[in-house]
Amino acid sequence: MIDQNRESLAISFDDVVAASRRIAGYVHRTPVLTSRRLNAILDAQVFFKCENLQRIGAFKARGAHNAVLSLDDERAAAGVVTHSSGNHAAALALAASSRGSTAAIVMPENAPAAKVMSVRRLGGEVHFCAPTIAAREAAAAGLVEERGATLVHPYNDPLVIAGQGTAAMELIEDYPALDAVMAPVGGGGLMAGTATAARAMAPSIRILATEPAQADDAWRSWSGGTLDPGDPPDTIADGLRTTLGDLNLPILRALLDDFATVSEQAIVEAMRLVWEIMKIVIEPSSAVPVAALLERKFDLRDAKVGVILTGGNVDLGLLPWQRAPESR
Amino acid sequence: MIDQNRESLAISFDDVVAASRRIAGYVHRTPVLTSRRLNAILDAQVFFKCENLQRIGAFKARGAHNAVLSLDDERAAAGVVTHSSGNHAAALALAASSRGSTAAIVMPENAPAAKVMSVRRLGGEVHFCAPTIAAREAAAAGLVEERGATLVHPYNDPLVIAGQGTAAMELIEDYPALDAVMAPVGGGGLMAGTATAARAMAPSIRILATEPAQADDAWRSWSGGTLDPGDPPDTIADGLRTTLGDLNLPILRALLDDFATVSEQAIVEAMRLVWEIMKIVIEPSSAVPVAALLERKFDLRDAKVGVILTGGNVDLGLLPWQRAPESR
Repeated sequence: MIDQNRESLAISFDDVVAASRRIAGYVHRTPVLTSRRLNAILDAQVFFKCENLQRIGAFKARGAHNAVLSLDDERAAAGVVTHSSGNHAAALALAASSRGSTAAIVMPENAPAAKVMSVRRLGGEVHFCAPTIAAREAAAAGLVEERGATLVHPYNDPLVIAGQGTAAMELIEDYPALDAVMAPVGGGGLMAGTATAARAMAPSIRILATEPAQADDAWRSWSGGTLDPGDPPDTIADGLRTTLGDLNLPILRALLDDFATVSEQAIVEAMRLVWEIMKIVIEPSSAVPVAALLERKFDLRDAKVGVILTGGNVDLGLLPWQRAPESR
Repeated sequence: MIDQNRESLAISFDDVVAASRRIAGYVHRTPVLTSRRLNAILDAQVFFKCENLQRIGAFKARGAHNAVLSLDDERAAAGVVTHSSGNHAAALALAASSRGSTAAIVMPENAPAAKVMSVRRLGGEVHFCAPTIAAREAAAAGLVEERGATLVHPYNDPLVIAGQGTAAMELIEDYPALDAVMAPVGGGGLMAGTATAARAMAPSIRILATEPAQADDAWRSWSGGTLDPGDPPDTIADGLRTTLGDLNLPILRALLDDFATVSEQAIVEAMRLVWEIMKIVIEPSSAVPVAALLERKFDLRDAKVGVILTGGNVDLGLLPWQRAPESR
């Protein structure tokens, strides 16, 4: 049974506010874009918070900077370590370099080439491992042991969760009258931070989580009340091929209004629509809440909906709509 | 010999200012984006005027609105006609609908599918013709004759040229200290409008034109002093497969500081860099000035350079870097 008492949650809104002050000047306050044509297609008035235009091309710059800028000088000197599907890796490499620290990154060997190059360009040391959660965690623990470095977990860390919440905080500062806010769930750091900021700033806002149906562990965990990682996730949304963190589940249980899963086909269609109509590059993970709007998963007709577009790091060599849809 | 007396040019800066007032509220004041990483690659401080985020996804919305909003009620009721490689067509369809008028559009039968659909969605009537300038002009003249409609030429019309100049006007209002401004040349409407605005607002700014080497008629005309259309242009930059208008040549002769042509390979590389780093969708024509920066065609080391990104209407089914480079 999950404790739904908010006092026991991993972060509070104060942590998001502190993160916002700490990371200002290191990350962008990203723009919010809208499109009349897309609104007509989605039957809602959608406000896109463009974290694809964030530094390193993803919201992960927020949490990583909050974690690394919180280190004292001694800890910073010993460096940071993480395991990541990509964007957190680049984010941590950048944050370490901002702080005069160093970052060692454990990445699955099937990570997109663009993400590996991005980490190296930012000065991160890449260590490859097998594409399983267990292999990643073991490799990262080895590096912590060896170097006395600090592990910055991609999503199961209170400083990271609070940092990710600053995107929704900015969005609601800019558009206080939103009826709903949506984000995708991978490890749950963004969704937990988003929910914390949104509930504090706009008590009656609807907080809506979205996940690929082919990587629905967070939906199952949220529905059932206990962590249910299940089979290795299999989705085109590579940023969401992680399982829900145990710090995030209680936050989602306490604060979410609803949770929907979407098909791979809808993710690809939503991604292409955003590229075609809004002329911005988003990665498949970003398209997951848009897919939920496209599939009318929630009752949001004519509502003002904030959507966090999580990132824009895509391998441009082969786009999702150019290959056969993946199926389980 | 071309008359370089400015009194005889087709438009003056006053026309751009009048256009700016006329089209306000109908078109977007587009954002200007920058990227540290791209600046490092290009060895310059580049300010991108994002006309890919303009209505209908291209700067052409400006000139078309200026032309259509200038019509009196009787002319507007008879409708407008044009021939276009695509973006002007969508722009004219939108402008006609804004004005309560109707637009008949002559398009080459090899126009990208996305552009044809875009015109139809905006209520434009599409009439296909052979992909030659002569065939387009004949078909448009036929429609003018038949309906008493007004021809709005895509680039050889003073109202259109003045409208296109409003993009550079906004860019220089936002960044008055620019050392240079760059745009691509197809029919020359954008470049002529840009040059007119830039020279009036910033007398010492360097005004730099760029064109694909495989569609270099404007470069030849500008260099030689007389219109030299030559062979049908053959470039991946489909928006620039037109030849220089006779109203634009004298403006370019009077106001340009320099003019460079770029390779197809550099256009594709520049386009991909902008997508990858800036996370925005631009069409190949937009990449032409970026290609000139990439190939160091002008001496702009560490200069503040304004670049008009002309549009973002691309057929996402097959991207330029996914096919073999075209060659003459």
